[in-house]
Amino acid sequence: MDVGHRAAVLLLSGGLDSTTMLAHAVAEGYAIHAMTFRYGQRHATEIDAARRVARAYGVTDHVIVDIDLRVFGGSALTAEIAVPKDRTASAMATGIPITYVPARNTIFLSYCLAWAEVLGAGDIFIGVNAVDYSGYPDCRPEYVAAFQAMANLATRRSVEGDAPLQLRTPLLHRSKCEIIDLGRSLGVDYSITMSCYDPDESGLACGHCDACALRLKGFADAGMTDPAPYARR
Amino acid sequence: MDVGHRAAVLLLSGGLDSTTMLAHAVAEGYAIHAMTFRYGQRHATEIDAARRVARAYGVTDHVIVDIDLRVFGGSALTAEIAVPKDRTASAMATGIPITYVPARNTIFLSYCLAWAEVLGAGDIFIGVNAVDYSGYPDCRPEYVAAFQAMANLATRRSVEGDAPLQLRTPLLHRSKCEIIDLGRSLGVDYSITMSCYDPDESGLACGHCDACALRLKGFADAGMTDPAPYARR
Repeated sequence: MDVGHRAAVLLLSGGLDSTTMLAHAVAEGYAIHAMTFRYGQRHATEIDAARRVARAYGVTDHVIVDIDLRVFGGSALTAEIAVPKDRTASAMATGIPITYVPARNTIFLSYCLAWAEVLGAGDIFIGVNAVDYSGYPDCRPEYVAAFQAMANLATRRSVEGDAPLQLRTPLLHRSKCEIIDLGRSLGVDYSITMSCYDPDESGLACGHCDACALRLKGFADAGMTDPAPYARR
Repeated sequence: MDVGHRAAVLLLSGGLDSTTMLAHAVAEGYAIHAMTFRYGQRHATEIDAARRVARAYGVTDHVIVDIDLRVFGGSALTAEIAVPKDRTASAMATGIPITYVPARNTIFLSYCLAWAEVLGAGDIFIGVNAVDYSGYPDCRPEYVAAFQAMANLATRRSVEGDAPLQLRTPLLHRSKCEIIDLGRSLGVDYSITMSCYDPDESGLACGHCDACALRLKGFADAGMTDPAPYARR
């Protein structure tokens, strides 16, 4: 599908998933308005990765939004709680982990919605994944459908009769291995991406948090070596 | 209904509506966690009003969240666009006004949702109104229902089997006059509240924007004089 240069807002973390999604959306012909959040996360070096990725794909514009989710606490990604390491696959598949940030995707998507409305963009891309995910409630297909329904009632579109806003989730049903295969077919350079929850002071991925473990397993399943730098694997 | 000291998050602007709602929720027995936004609005003196009101009602805590909606532009409340004055009732009832801030209630409620999840609060109060409202899509009953459905899928509750989160909108179907009657029965001191979109430098209400016009008409209908200070009426 080539949509010409229709505007879309895309949530870009600079990780493997959102970078693959960006390459996919650009290949579809969208003019991308990328949005990245500095939300008090431990892994703020992902902001640098998002900048590198946005530059590599020639996005139309890229906004870094400063928000402070630390006022709420409650997550290992924003509070002084240790990020779990070397968890087994079955432990990762069970329950909601301490790295869950309350309502994070809802807050991020709300900002995307505001920007989409100002731009007149009809699509918002978010790289949520329901296969190799970490047990976050706000990555499930039923959540995505409910946000889209709410978003269409929240804004001018439903009042003024425009086409409904689409919440696009091209990665929702792909395994990490399939995402990497898609990225490879699009020529994605994964060396500039960053997925780790707990990088060291120089920005190197730890290789042992849930995000690193899922990513490394994805590359192994795809028969590739992850080109990104790690402190240790 | 007396709910004991069950925790609730309440969106507090310091205006007539949210102040009346606060008095109502306190009378119901809720322990209130009030949340106010400094979002680049022209009328930042409403933050002072929110502080006065929170103090007057002995809320459990009161958080002022700094967010910057000016990066999006697109509204007379946040951009360099004139606030309309002295509009007729029929003009106010038609279309979406320039004071509409894209996705504002969705962004506000998303933060409330995050805080409610961290607190374990089961209720969020928002003073939206579908009667004497200003044509904002995110004040309609169908929007409120859709946000509540999304919120319950976004968070731990639906995964862990807790009671659903309730989005409480006690003012939704009341006219401004009925809201004032409710507040009067609860002993609300409206002199400390602030509703104006475009106050002067000393913080006095303009008396002529849509918010002032609706408020002054409400007091007139209730057979009262608004005790709040105005630059001119």
